[in-house]
Amino acid sequence: MRKNYLLAPGPTPVPESALLAMAQPIIHHRTPQFSEVFKETAELLKYVFQTRQDVLMLAASGTGAMEGSITNLFSPGDEVVVINGGKFGERWGKISEAYGLKAHWINVEWGKAVDPAVVRKVLDENPNSKAVLAQASETSTTVAHPIKELAALTKDRECLLIVDGITGVGVFDLPMDDWGIDVLVSGSQKAFMLPPGLAFVALSEKAWKFQESAKCPRFYFDFKKERKNLKDNTSAYTPAVSLITGLRQALLMIKEEGLQNVFARHDRLARAARAAAAALGLKLLAPESPSNAATGVFVPEGVEGGKLVKYMRDVMGVTMAGGQDHLKGKIVRVAHLGYVDTFDVVTAVSAIEIALNKFGYKAQYGKGVAAALQILAEGYK
Amino acid sequence: MRKNYLLAPGPTPVPESALLAMAQPIIHHRTPQFSEVFKETAELLKYVFQTRQDVLMLAASGTGAMEGSITNLFSPGDEVVVINGGKFGERWGKISEAYGLKAHWINVEWGKAVDPAVVRKVLDENPNSKAVLAQASETSTTVAHPIKELAALTKDRECLLIVDGITGVGVFDLPMDDWGIDVLVSGSQKAFMLPPGLAFVALSEKAWKFQESAKCPRFYFDFKKERKNLKDNTSAYTPAVSLITGLRQALLMIKEEGLQNVFARHDRLARAARAAAAALGLKLLAPESPSNAATGVFVPEGVEGGKLVKYMRDVMGVTMAGGQDHLKGKIVRVAHLGYVDTFDVVTAVSAIEIALNKFGYKAQYGKGVAAALQILAEGYK
Repeated sequence: MRKNYLLAPGPTPVPESALLAMAQPIIHHRTPQFSEVFKETAELLKYVFQTRQDVLMLAASGTGAMEGSITNLFSPGDEVVVINGGKFGERWGKISEAYGLKAHWINVEWGKAVDPAVVRKVLDENPNSKAVLAQASETSTTVAHPIKELAALTKDRECLLIVDGITGVGVFDLPMDDWGIDVLVSGSQKAFMLPPGLAFVALSEKAWKFQESAKCPRFYFDFKKERKNLKDNTSAYTPAVSLITGLRQALLMIKEEGLQNVFARHDRLARAARAAAAALGLKLLAPESPSNAATGVFVPEGVEGGKLVKYMRDVMGVTMAGGQDHLKGKIVRVAHLGYVDTFDVVTAVSAIEIALNKFGYKAQYGKGVAAALQILAEGYK
Repeated sequence: MRKNYLLAPGPTPVPESALLAMAQPIIHHRTPQFSEVFKETAELLKYVFQTRQDVLMLAASGTGAMEGSITNLFSPGDEVVVINGGKFGERWGKISEAYGLKAHWINVEWGKAVDPAVVRKVLDENPNSKAVLAQASETSTTVAHPIKELAALTKDRECLLIVDGITGVGVFDLPMDDWGIDVLVSGSQKAFMLPPGLAFVALSEKAWKFQESAKCPRFYFDFKKERKNLKDNTSAYTPAVSLITGLRQALLMIKEEGLQNVFARHDRLARAARAAAAALGLKLLAPESPSNAATGVFVPEGVEGGKLVKYMRDVMGVTMAGGQDHLKGKIVRVAHLGYVDTFDVVTAVSAIEIALNKFGYKAQYGKGVAAALQILAEGYK
């Protein structure tokens, strides 16, 4: 007998109420009944995105919305600045180049956040740049980039700030309108507490203006068409009915908890995870600008990260993530976003303590948990 | 946002596969389709009860099968020996007296197991006693009574050993046939990992002989009638279709894990819980003969047990049990039976550590968890 715990940075656990909502019989999507669900869900999404703009819902993974953010706003030959500090930063660049854009790459050491001064310099040197492409939370390195500072750089230029908030939106504060984020992307299987299958994207007025002259080829991800349909409480193509029904439920949960409380919970869980790592003598991957979505730690000398992750998943039932590319086998990433709370972090830290001991690293039992509990206790009055 | 954890000694958590089995459309109970399910389930129950006898399935809580064990086997005026070491031992006596039996009460201090020598003495002094009524696991005090020793006492007398195994069967070894247990009772919402609603009972050949002359009034709990129907793969009255469908699934899980492995898991979880209590300086309610189903601890001086349990349930989402009668407010009982594993015990101990600190008892964070993890790690090769 083995219970399974999903503690990887997506998909994340789905609340029972959302699972049950999705288990209801599927209704037809071109009906007043579904339009009602669609309309309410679209309104709730604005709350989480902290925007007055429409938030488009696409039947796609987050990457689909990233691609659409390029194809709907730019033309071949346009210049963009790509902040490449991990797998997902790299993806912005790859999508841009796939559509014939000219990318100015800012390569950032994995585990570090981009320095806004460097971005300013690149923008100054390349004044035709039409966008800065960044991650709010670079999932592959557990880094949070300084979005507010980047928004200040693009605000007064003919340049958009396009943010992959896939593991950022609903995790920490990203007030789209207040900060001046021009495009904000997210996905269902992260803080939205749903299975994979939905991508979300919202555009500022400034971004919608770019859309008017964009020449990149596109068909399925047609933001203008989606916005038009959204006004009629529907989507351009067949929506993922059950996922949207579940999304409505999950968004109601977020609204009931309150967005600032959601952020505070993620902050507490993340601090607990980082304190546990420190107590166990595990070096953080992103000590200076960590994301509250997930915590990455280097595995101790002599322990193979891949085997450790596999052991926890296949023997202990606890799924975390390893490292990618040059960090493969070197790190473990434990997520704490979405439908997670105190005892999920306790489970993660306990699992790591047991597994490290199995692999010969003498982690003192309870030491990481103790450091975590001290912080997790703040969650209870 | 609060996740809920059910760590009381029943109902216990239900595995997803059993929940999904029970969520299927209800089939009619007088059909070959349901008979197939019924037949397979009845066979699997024998495996868990460790008996060649039929195991009857009743739509009732465990108390129903306890009552039937009296009414089907005895007549008004019959003498029985009642081992009264807690709420459930007391219940044997109350049921017996409700039907006009004469009960010889053996009162045992709550938290202690009965001394077989005392039972022998009472049987010798009351040679007409037709039964010894005991709990394998007295849930109210977290005590395990010495069933094997009691069986040795009744074996060669005209006297039955009737065992309430409601939190015993499927938790620790109770080989009915091998030990000579004459009646063994259990219920769905414990180690059987189901919602409440089903009771189980198996009778030895010796017990079935008592049935022939029993004169107590009975109708719904008619064991002879149920046995006759069971041979035809059905039940006398309408069976709880969805619960039996879920039961089949849960029993398949138990069979797959293997009964001895199930016992070993419960033993490990129980030892971990007791070690955590000791590390936190919490006195065990049943230090000498603890049941592996649940661990009872006295709350520290100055802490109100009732408030502690309420706080954990209503603020932290962790449901444990308090004490009953004169132990009310004095103890906390945490269960570790059924669909529970490593991280459930870690959750329980963490919750207690946090809650005790909230109530002014300086439990050193991680100290209980550390002691538990040391033992829980045995569960992984």
